[in-house]
Amino acid sequence: MSSQRASVRAILDQAKTEGRSSLRPDESRILCDAYGIPLPRQRLVRTVAELSEAVGEIGFPLVVKIASDDILHKTEANGVVVGIKTLAEASEAFEQVTRNALAYKADARIEGVLVQQMATAGSELIVGALTDPSFGKVVAFGLGGILVEVFNDVSFRLAPATQEEALSMLSSIKGAEILNGTRGAAPVDRQAVAQIIVAVSHAVSDFPEIRELDLNPVFAWSQGAMAADVRVLLDFTTPRERYRPSQQEILQAMNRIMRPDAVAVIGASPEDGKIGNSVMKNLINGGYQGRIYPIHPKAEEILGRKAYKSVKEVPDPIDVAVFAIPAPLVAGALRECGEKHIPGAVLIPSGFAETGNFELQEEIVKIGREYNVRLMGPNIYGFYYTPKNLCATFCTPYDVKGHAALSSQSGGVGMAIVGFSRTTKMGVSAIVGLGNKSDLDEDDLLTFFEQDPDTHVIAMHVEDLKDGRAFAEVASRVSKKKPVIVLKAGRTAMGARAARSHTAALAGNDRIYDDVLRQCGVVRAYALKDMLELARCLPILPTPQGENVLIITGAGGSGVLLSDACVDNGLKLMTMPPDLDAAFRKFIPPFGAAGNPVDITGGEPPTTYRNTIALGLEDARVHALVLGYWHTIITPPMVFANLLAEVVEEFRLKGIRKPIVASLVGDVEVEQACDYLFDRGIPAFPYTTELPLLVLGAKYRWARAAGLVGS
Amino acid sequence: MSSQRASVRAILDQAKTEGRSSLRPDESRILCDAYGIPLPRQRLVRTVAELSEAVGEIGFPLVVKIASDDILHKTEANGVVVGIKTLAEASEAFEQVTRNALAYKADARIEGVLVQQMATAGSELIVGALTDPSFGKVVAFGLGGILVEVFNDVSFRLAPATQEEALSMLSSIKGAEILNGTRGAAPVDRQAVAQIIVAVSHAVSDFPEIRELDLNPVFAWSQGAMAADVRVLLDFTTPRERYRPSQQEILQAMNRIMRPDAVAVIGASPEDGKIGNSVMKNLINGGYQGRIYPIHPKAEEILGRKAYKSVKEVPDPIDVAVFAIPAPLVAGALRECGEKHIPGAVLIPSGFAETGNFELQEEIVKIGREYNVRLMGPNIYGFYYTPKNLCATFCTPYDVKGHAALSSQSGGVGMAIVGFSRTTKMGVSAIVGLGNKSDLDEDDLLTFFEQDPDTHVIAMHVEDLKDGRAFAEVASRVSKKKPVIVLKAGRTAMGARAARSHTAALAGNDRIYDDVLRQCGVVRAYALKDMLELARCLPILPTPQGENVLIITGAGGSGVLLSDACVDNGLKLMTMPPDLDAAFRKFIPPFGAAGNPVDITGGEPPTTYRNTIALGLEDARVHALVLGYWHTIITPPMVFANLLAEVVEEFRLKGIRKPIVASLVGDVEVEQACDYLFDRGIPAFPYTTELPLLVLGAKYRWARAAGLVGS
Repeated sequence: MSSQRASVRAILDQAKTEGRSSLRPDESRILCDAYGIPLPRQRLVRTVAELSEAVGEIGFPLVVKIASDDILHKTEANGVVVGIKTLAEASEAFEQVTRNALAYKADARIEGVLVQQMATAGSELIVGALTDPSFGKVVAFGLGGILVEVFNDVSFRLAPATQEEALSMLSSIKGAEILNGTRGAAPVDRQAVAQIIVAVSHAVSDFPEIRELDLNPVFAWSQGAMAADVRVLLDFTTPRERYRPSQQEILQAMNRIMRPDAVAVIGASPEDGKIGNSVMKNLINGGYQGRIYPIHPKAEEILGRKAYKSVKEVPDPIDVAVFAIPAPLVAGALRECGEKHIPGAVLIPSGFAETGNFELQEEIVKIGREYNVRLMGPNIYGFYYTPKNLCATFCTPYDVKGHAALSSQSGGVGMAIVGFSRTTKMGVSAIVGLGNKSDLDEDDLLTFFEQDPDTHVIAMHVEDLKDGRAFAEVASRVSKKKPVIVLKAGRTAMGARAARSHTAALAGNDRIYDDVLRQCGVVRAYALKDMLELARCLPILPTPQGENVLIITGAGGSGVLLSDACVDNGLKLMTMPPDLDAAFRKFIPPFGAAGNPVDITGGEPPTTYRNTIALGLEDARVHALVLGYWHTIITPPMVFANLLAEVVEEFRLKGIRKPIVASLVGDVEVEQACDYLFDRGIPAFPYTTELPLLVLGAKYRWARAAGLVGS
Repeated sequence: MSSQRASVRAILDQAKTEGRSSLRPDESRILCDAYGIPLPRQRLVRTVAELSEAVGEIGFPLVVKIASDDILHKTEANGVVVGIKTLAEASEAFEQVTRNALAYKADARIEGVLVQQMATAGSELIVGALTDPSFGKVVAFGLGGILVEVFNDVSFRLAPATQEEALSMLSSIKGAEILNGTRGAAPVDRQAVAQIIVAVSHAVSDFPEIRELDLNPVFAWSQGAMAADVRVLLDFTTPRERYRPSQQEILQAMNRIMRPDAVAVIGASPEDGKIGNSVMKNLINGGYQGRIYPIHPKAEEILGRKAYKSVKEVPDPIDVAVFAIPAPLVAGALRECGEKHIPGAVLIPSGFAETGNFELQEEIVKIGREYNVRLMGPNIYGFYYTPKNLCATFCTPYDVKGHAALSSQSGGVGMAIVGFSRTTKMGVSAIVGLGNKSDLDEDDLLTFFEQDPDTHVIAMHVEDLKDGRAFAEVASRVSKKKPVIVLKAGRTAMGARAARSHTAALAGNDRIYDDVLRQCGVVRAYALKDMLELARCLPILPTPQGENVLIITGAGGSGVLLSDACVDNGLKLMTMPPDLDAAFRKFIPPFGAAGNPVDITGGEPPTTYRNTIALGLEDARVHALVLGYWHTIITPPMVFANLLAEVVEEFRLKGIRKPIVASLVGDVEVEQACDYLFDRGIPAFPYTTELPLLVLGAKYRWARAAGLVGS
């Protein structure tokens, strides 16, 4: 630790000893100095002679403040004079604040008068850091004054932040343009502001007892920036650490849990309608090929499988135990799992934290740690892992194999995943219920899915992140390889209140979620159906190689709506090069419109669609295609679907794979055409011009964050 | 005209004579005075003696400006001094600006020096008016300075605006809070600001040659407001008037066109695949019971109907002629329709303005006016009117009768309407293609649908409004009776560019559309699918009697997402009264959550859903119900659908009708349950927690604007 850091350590220890929850101004200054955060020049003076000297050092304009530990609210005591421009004014202020201070509090001990450089003009900004219940230390940046108060225009990053991340915060506020200089003002010194952000983020990361650090306002000029006021709040309580095994430990356990060779069902039942009966049936009828051990206090066998009184009686190793017994019996059975060295317990029962029974949940967590049994749930539907034909759940079995792994914190959302997947033929590798997340959570799943060859995209319904910091670390790594989609429920104050009442989870500030998820390369979905559509389509969509999106449409009206949707989803309609424009014009009628959208007009035969699509695929300057199909007699829906699938396959064989999405408008036959296209790797949607672009936009957002899109 | 108005008339005439496109400052002041818009006190002075007198009248602080018609850019000429606080400073400024002016332009004719009151402190606002290509005179209000430039935080209303409308503008900007006083500032004088808005709106309405009027900045204090600068731009060209028949004339024509007793098909063809053949088949197979006259140059009969060479040969009256002939033949045939006194022509052919052939379009418009034939199109698919089994279109026939009337400017969107309607069993009264809107447009349709007993909701896809002013008037009236939904395509700059290239329509500023549509009580849809869902659901949803929305859910997770969606759609979750809370608790398990959402938990039998829903319907304090169903073995989807339909019917018989929407999550059986519920008047949706609230929110938005919701 440098000597400067040591000085911070010393003032924090002092504050702790004195039982304080904030730093004094002089201490705050030491902290800022240690981290190179520029503050106004200042000097404490006791005499008019000293004042004169200080004024010479600091320069005008000045602020004069009474310095007394006995006067906390200096303004209230008329102990502050601002805007001092001459030595005479300074002398007058010196006497005035001293007089006022004593009038305010006759027995106040006066240390002297603080003479301080006064920041003028420049842009007024705010830099701060806070401790978020999910994400821990987070650094914030915003425009000062009215803008932060009324427009709530702030951006957040995990602390510590790099200079690059800090610079990105300046660009990501809504009022970013103001920093470039408006109304003739000079642009602010971005590097200097970013340095302050970085410094703040390091200070709170180095010293976790700093609960909040506020620089408000920060003044920034075209050269340099300075914090005009500092506030530091402290909290010396040690936050409870969540269990965080190593990546290797997670994989060891998760590989056995998700791909087990042997499953025990604790509470297996021969009786129809019982959860323990449904789980048994799903395992058997789902086609799971591993060993299945029903556990039952009396039965000899259940559904043709030999039953055991306890997992401890099972002669062979067991990888995962599915619990289908009432909550009060869970602890005992879990202990037996521990003694049997079973690495995972799937806790379907409810009656834990979600019903207010926190003690019972704490008890099972303790047992889990004691025996190193990882817990999924409690209060879940179980999980599906299709590569193993494993349906470890009491819900209906699911068997459409594919590459989307989904998780949900809520059972209702889990069932929506099952139904949607089945009806849209979304291929799934896994569906996992996380429920109360007493132990296993999104980080563990991400770590497993990261290396699971059957998973190409991960979609998660999240009400709260128990350890947002850990999630962010893992998600940042995983999202470089596979798209990670998050539906954060409880976005709004009302929604968050509902989330609390049902999971006792503290929903974090949604704006922090938004920024941090983006920082981690996570694609956020804002609606349940959106999350499901993205999980369905992202794995089949090739990664774009550049930003040039081209719309080809048979319906001009669709072209307009598709263009709107491009903008809404942050996509860039390519500027059509003249030679390419000319090439398109060869294929379309003279009254059609080239440019972008390319409007081939409605009455065209299949060849026109075919030729223009082929041209879009062929030309290397085009990176993604958006197709607007219009149902006509001359090119019926299935004819369009066939020609599109053919031309795409033709180019695939030549090694050309570009993302293509399609909007099909027409009579009901377009639905069949969309199904046909989806089965052939082309996301196509009937009666909507928005969904195709939502999907393409999400693929771009992911690919950009993962650094995969060229320019 | 008052004498003040007469003075404005005089300066405008003067400006016109002089060929100017703007007013001089002194003229602008006359305009402001005429409308009671407060400006800074000022006096033109020529001597230091006069100056001294002027200073006495006006008070400090002051601005001193050179007054010379020869110097347009006073600041550039160093001809302005601001912030003058003493008479000495004023005298110095007087000499200085005169000196600078002559240095800048030696031969400048100096009228004197303008001494002006300087507005200080207060809030900086902008009030203005402009001439929108669609809506004509529109008044604008926003926060001044950086806020309007960077955040584009402006609100618009049609001019002239009432004081009440002007006040609503102050509340509808994003930064509205700033006007209430932030950071200790006093709130602005809302009445005074609104008066300025009203005055500006009247000025531009009274004098259409005022193209733009800008008061920027306007300073507002806790008492009073004042415009510090005025800019007035003029345009003396007379805008081309669109044909605007009276309401009675529209109804006379539209009733014959939409509900004809006799239809002629010009270009009827016996040949499969021809448009004139499809139209004939659709008329016949669609079940139209009126007379059908094929028009063909040679054929004796077509599809069993006697054919005629011209409409003029038909012995009986004809109400509408459907054109299925090439564009160049349209004018001739249209003239014959005129001579036959046919009130309406449905112009399917393309090849007019949309392909750049403006002359041909103008020609047919002229013929239409000459003979008083109203034109639908050209460049359309035709129209459907199901109460008459009328499919006057070349697309597929459509026959699911119901109460939604839809129109589209684009054929692609029209086909999406047909397909979506068929697949979702959306009941439709009419689907109308408007295409190029050479004559008939949304106003005519609204006027017809307003009094059409078979139409309960109107949904329109709009790329541009040819006469937004007329639309606004009609929509304001109609939306009081029936919901009017508008999907405005070309919302974004890119989308608008695409719209122009395909319809040659100038897409107006989207923000103006947004505000004006809201002002007219129109519900705006932002996505094609949303418009379709709203058209489908709004007619079957009862109108809410108050703002209290209650969520009852079997899945806590759905409750959270439904709460988020409530907020997103501007709905108010009712605060649960303690007695009602207690009543709900009787029905739900002890670990369930009352409050709002009422979480009945997942494992409950049908009776729990039934009892809680009945309670929500019964209690008069609850105005709307949002249901979250979770698929379980104990309450399967169709059991839930049955009990819900039953309990709703039970209450309907008692005269209790509240809007209910439902989100069903579960396996695919929930889809059947949703269909069952929709058929029984309950909008229910699978796999989504957002769509139910979009629908309920739209019903509320409409009902609030129509003044139908109590508080």
